[in-house]
Amino acid sequence: MNTITKEIMHVGEMASGAALTVPVYRLCGDKNAPSVYIQANMHGAEVQGNAVIFQLLELLKDTQINGNITLVPYANPVGCNHKNGEYTLGRFDPITGMNWNRMYHFDEGIIKPFIRESIGKDDVVIEENFKKLMIDTIEQKLDHNIFGLTTGQRIAYQLQRLAHQADIVLDLHTGPISSKHLYCPEYAKSSAEYFDIEHTIFIQNGFDGAMDEATFCPWWSLQEAYQDLGRHFTMGEGAFNKESFTVELGSQEQIDLDVAKQDALSILSYLHSQGVIDNNEYQPQEMTRYACYLKDYKALYSPMGGMVDYLGEFGKPLAAGEPLARILRMDNYGDGEALHYVSLEQEVIPILHFASASVNQGTELYKVFCNYFEI
Amino acid sequence: MNTITKEIMHVGEMASGAALTVPVYRLCGDKNAPSVYIQANMHGAEVQGNAVIFQLLELLKDTQINGNITLVPYANPVGCNHKNGEYTLGRFDPITGMNWNRMYHFDEGIIKPFIRESIGKDDVVIEENFKKLMIDTIEQKLDHNIFGLTTGQRIAYQLQRLAHQADIVLDLHTGPISSKHLYCPEYAKSSAEYFDIEHTIFIQNGFDGAMDEATFCPWWSLQEAYQDLGRHFTMGEGAFNKESFTVELGSQEQIDLDVAKQDALSILSYLHSQGVIDNNEYQPQEMTRYACYLKDYKALYSPMGGMVDYLGEFGKPLAAGEPLARILRMDNYGDGEALHYVSLEQEVIPILHFASASVNQGTELYKVFCNYFEI
Amino acid sequence: MNTITKEIMHVGEMASGAALTVPVYRLCGDKNAPSVYIQANMHGAEVQGNAVIFQLLELLKDTQINGNITLVPYANPVGCNHKNGEYTLGRFDPITGMNWNRMYHFDEGIIKPFIRESIGKDDVVIEENFKKLMIDTIEQKLDHNIFGLTTGQRIAYQLQRLAHQADIVLDLHTGPISSKHLYCPEYAKSSAEYFDIEHTIFIQNGFDGAMDEATFCPWWSLQEAYQDLGRHFTMGEGAFNKESFTVELGSQEQIDLDVAKQDALSILSYLHSQGVIDNNEYQPQEMTRYACYLKDYKALYSPMGGMVDYLGEFGKPLAAGEPLARILRMDNYGDGEALHYVSLEQEVIPILHFASASVNQGTELYKVFCNYFEI
Amino acid sequence: MNTITKEIMHVGEMASGAALTVPVYRLCGDKNAPSVYIQANMHGAEVQGNAVIFQLLELLKDTQINGNITLVPYANPVGCNHKNGEYTLGRFDPITGMNWNRMYHFDEGIIKPFIRESIGKDDVVIEENFKKLMIDTIEQKLDHNIFGLTTGQRIAYQLQRLAHQADIVLDLHTGPISSKHLYCPEYAKSSAEYFDIEHTIFIQNGFDGAMDEATFCPWWSLQEAYQDLGRHFTMGEGAFNKESFTVELGSQEQIDLDVAKQDALSILSYLHSQGVIDNNEYQPQEMTRYACYLKDYKALYSPMGGMVDYLGEFGKPLAAGEPLARILRMDNYGDGEALHYVSLEQEVIPILHFASASVNQGTELYKVFCNYFEI
Repeated sequence: MNTITKEIMHVGEMASGAALTVPVYRLCGDKNAPSVYIQANMHGAEVQGNAVIFQLLELLKDTQINGNITLVPYANPVGCNHKNGEYTLGRFDPITGMNWNRMYHFDEGIIKPFIRESIGKDDVVIEENFKKLMIDTIEQKLDHNIFGLTTGQRIAYQLQRLAHQADIVLDLHTGPISSKHLYCPEYAKSSAEYFDIEHTIFIQNGFDGAMDEATFCPWWSLQEAYQDLGRHFTMGEGAFNKESFTVELGSQEQIDLDVAKQDALSILSYLHSQGVIDNNEYQPQEMTRYACYLKDYKALYSPMGGMVDYLGEFGKPLAAGEPLARILRMDNYGDGEALHYVSLEQEVIPILHFASASVNQGTELYKVFCNYFEI
Repeated sequence: MNTITKEIMHVGEMASGAALTVPVYRLCGDKNAPSVYIQANMHGAEVQGNAVIFQLLELLKDTQINGNITLVPYANPVGCNHKNGEYTLGRFDPITGMNWNRMYHFDEGIIKPFIRESIGKDDVVIEENFKKLMIDTIEQKLDHNIFGLTTGQRIAYQLQRLAHQADIVLDLHTGPISSKHLYCPEYAKSSAEYFDIEHTIFIQNGFDGAMDEATFCPWWSLQEAYQDLGRHFTMGEGAFNKESFTVELGSQEQIDLDVAKQDALSILSYLHSQGVIDNNEYQPQEMTRYACYLKDYKALYSPMGGMVDYLGEFGKPLAAGEPLARILRMDNYGDGEALHYVSLEQEVIPILHFASASVNQGTELYKVFCNYFEI
Repeated sequence: MNTITKEIMHVGEMASGAALTVPVYRLCGDKNAPSVYIQANMHGAEVQGNAVIFQLLELLKDTQINGNITLVPYANPVGCNHKNGEYTLGRFDPITGMNWNRMYHFDEGIIKPFIRESIGKDDVVIEENFKKLMIDTIEQKLDHNIFGLTTGQRIAYQLQRLAHQADIVLDLHTGPISSKHLYCPEYAKSSAEYFDIEHTIFIQNGFDGAMDEATFCPWWSLQEAYQDLGRHFTMGEGAFNKESFTVELGSQEQIDLDVAKQDALSILSYLHSQGVIDNNEYQPQEMTRYACYLKDYKALYSPMGGMVDYLGEFGKPLAAGEPLARILRMDNYGDGEALHYVSLEQEVIPILHFASASVNQGTELYKVFCNYFEI
Repeated sequence: MNTITKEIMHVGEMASGAALTVPVYRLCGDKNAPSVYIQANMHGAEVQGNAVIFQLLELLKDTQINGNITLVPYANPVGCNHKNGEYTLGRFDPITGMNWNRMYHFDEGIIKPFIRESIGKDDVVIEENFKKLMIDTIEQKLDHNIFGLTTGQRIAYQLQRLAHQADIVLDLHTGPISSKHLYCPEYAKSSAEYFDIEHTIFIQNGFDGAMDEATFCPWWSLQEAYQDLGRHFTMGEGAFNKESFTVELGSQEQIDLDVAKQDALSILSYLHSQGVIDNNEYQPQEMTRYACYLKDYKALYSPMGGMVDYLGEFGKPLAAGEPLARILRMDNYGDGEALHYVSLEQEVIPILHFASASVNQGTELYKVFCNYFEI
């Protein structure tokens, strides 16, 4: 039985002085396999990942572990505990509106000087040095800022400091009301088939402040910069064997421990494929997997205010012209149209929809796969 | 085909001067049957009643109508449009915290003087005069208050003015995540079986500010006062043929037009039983109906903070000791209990649970029927 | 120099498991003078009382203390840390809308049995026994409730358990934008002049869930019940030497340590008058003090939505017909009245006004003294 | 007396179907002077600009007007009416957290093709064509988007469509608790002295979604692109006589009609300097004006959670090491430091501070001018 160590990380303080803390669980691998960092609940309402970490810990206790694994539930103690009415404020700092998952750090400016200083170094040294540079950069930001950090940066940078120590990073999220889906960097396409998740979004090298990007963009940018200079590294292999995913586990505001067990098995299947664990029983399920590129993962904004009966079934192709939703407008009853149907002029796969029937004109109704393909 | 008239009622103003309006739909009955008032969406997130009113209007268009019917969707335009994060702030004025359904008016002090002035009057006159007194009282409050009314009172009193003109009042609500249930005054027990709702709460004569109470308590108190004087009226019959229900349609934040059709049929079955409509096809479904008294309709508050996997199935008796919920406490993993089971020491029927997995110590987890019985 | 002891009281848990704690400071008196309980910040935005407790502790360190003094800042750790936008959600549980200062407990039903059991007992025993009964009742509610307590009850009851051990209770609040004022039970009128507060509201014996009421109503009801039986006790004297005040320190969302020092001196002047401390320099300031009865402390609700330029000066009599506010309605510019003046037909003293210029129709604009008098 | 026309612009719909509307006021100039667009209250709590528009209209009624003037109060009807507790949610869409003033549109990609197509055209034609292109681009976004627009984009683009028709754009904002200050593009430095505002921030050509940027960045980028090609235009002159400012009027949540009159006079002084109006009495006040560059306008984030007594006086240079704030931490009283002083190691001018005493670690405490200079 493996030893699980636990540490309490201090990530902030509230007005009363109450400490904001995050528990950090660690298991040590006894071979030189890739190391793993898994966090959950950065968005307050997206709680299912905590249950998945529970099930992962239960399963990992008795699994042969080759690489170090760090697991962080309740990653954002502000968001996690912030109620507005009955629900948990999901996505942003209630004071500033800043999305909690857009505050990680990457400054592309570190790449060129690093390359200059690394001339003549071999692959392993480059990997070690770049990893150290990333961690040093974050520590510099955490500790040496006269004007301080925002609440969200302080939390994000401390998580990022942990994540930068790993080769593989999984950030567990959920949609609002949603099917499972996976954000996967294009270079790691082949890994997507190890998750028991039917829908994958392939993303390119572009940094917009999210955890997955903050962990793969630096390496990817470094690899591209070397490429321009004629030195070839392959992302996901050798010195650049770094992978990072945002795993969307389903709907927010829900804990289901049985489903969490399935999701834990899906993650173990992926970790097994990377050699992090040994147990051969962790294999992916057979399923048809669809993907689309990020540019084709479209949000549909409501053409009107109203109350929505969501009709589009998740995960199933919906023919052009078929209704995604019907919108009730009782104020128009009798002297206008009380029911409006919303459809698209192309075939799509609905992936998630808004969490409430009540929408303003311009509220995000659905997110859908366009131009999708089987993988 | 019946004529549906529509009127826009002005119930308030926002800071920008934007008018708060409520649409009022009316159908005229052509016989002297009881008149009906139905409203929906007094609590912002409880939107399904709007869809039920839509289906009622669609069905009533071609039904023989004997009594006047007034229908008011979107009864509370402040609550209906108030978003906090993705959800709609449900139950209270966001400025004051006052529950929107606790602001109706009834002053028991009107009873005694009314009785004194009605000595020697016959039943019909008493009914007419008391109805007029109730309406006059509300109009007095709406129009002649030097220090003004709260936002919620202004909305509630205008709805109440409409409701007081009817013999039958239905206030359409929903629970958070909930099965259907019905709040029914004890004297109207026999009416509960006409609704296609399996669970009914019987309430006594006590005014706490809700719409249903505001419409039956005055009559009930009058009847009791007469009783004390030896003059016998029966609630729900003759001059006191007044019934008022809060109909809980299921879960909040959802519109389902197909389910709404079923709920509309359930209401029509009740209206048919009261002679308001003629169509014999509107009959209640056969089902086992359970009830309990209001004092036995218990809220269970969470014994701890944590993340809840709700296990108690709605509408099914749950044996003493069986788990209602298991609560995840990942912060305790490794050095405490990460999973806690919550159960009760008596048999109950779970009716609804909290809308989010994330709860504080003391958040209302479940509402359950204790000491329930078949009706 | 007096010893200040500190204890951390656990009052609840958040969803992440984070403990809700409250610091409790105590100083021991060395004579048999009345004991004192002072708390602050039960409403989240009303923070100035914390600074007053800081200054009280600083001053009490070197003061001769005759009775025990307990001081509790940050009394409500949920409210204190709850941000919605830049502000702190003031008055109510964000989940339920329940006013945090309406959740204390008093059940009038304890009075009659207590009197029956106390026949023949002398005053001191009655006082001791009733105090014990009050504390036991609260402990019973805290510890022996199968269905649990709400979040707010759990906090309130724990504070109340501390308060019931004292003879004098001060609950430090603030208004929204406000002058200083004092809620004082009628029987303690003569104590009002020891506070450096110009405006006092006299309240009668009626329990509505607030801390001040929860501490004086039980004694007052007991005294009245004895009175009905012909045994005479005087409130504020002898065995019934119990006093309880809500001290409104000014405006919310503000800390001013210099003003807090003045408020601390005002409280010490009152405590000196009660023999709790010895230092003769703590004397009330000379000022004209006005009072009115609670029924004459009126809220004025806005007659329209709009944006308010508040004109009524706090603490100064405002003649009938003089404007309290002018309300801007730019939407009416050009084709209606863009400026509206609000006045009353009687002389009043404005005490506080709403915290924002933006009001809905029915938002509480001002609270004013009517029928005030000098004390 | 000038004619003021009024139009109601429909900018969205709420869930109940309620229309979101904005009033648009226009005055026609009778000479060929620059045209002006002024809006207020894009952030919900920043209401004083509405009062300034009221006073501007009152003053402009009887002023000789040479260029067309369009004024839009209540520019954002969602934000304006959105209450959370007593306050108005200021800065962002309550559903998404998106800052309402970061949703305007500018795609730099339009510049190069425009220049290609404009070869050989003269200045006036270039100005007309580019203006038309900007308006057409916005109309295209408003009307031809299959996947729709967000709520905020729909509002912002409609305001932007009005703004693009003007040569001068003023966006009236406020800080939280704040002194007056002005955001001014560097090329328009000389205009800053016509406003009665002591502190100005000079900004460079960079688009981050705000209204001022959305109106000056396109012209500035066009000018720079021509510069690269050797054709010289001067920003603020001739065909490129375009100026755009964000005017910060003081603190949020307040209406003061008397101060608004002063602010209106300040704006008229600027408009007079641009030839928009004729009245010579509109001249700037004499005052010492300070400025700094945007990079030197620094936010100071709180180094700890706590309750803040703000000490830094607005508008006055504060020496290095002098305290900006003292932070109360009552939880540390007795066994730690209960008072902490916050200072900076350089001289600054405090401009604004946070709206509440209660701050988390990382909440923005102050914004200050560093490296400021007299203008």
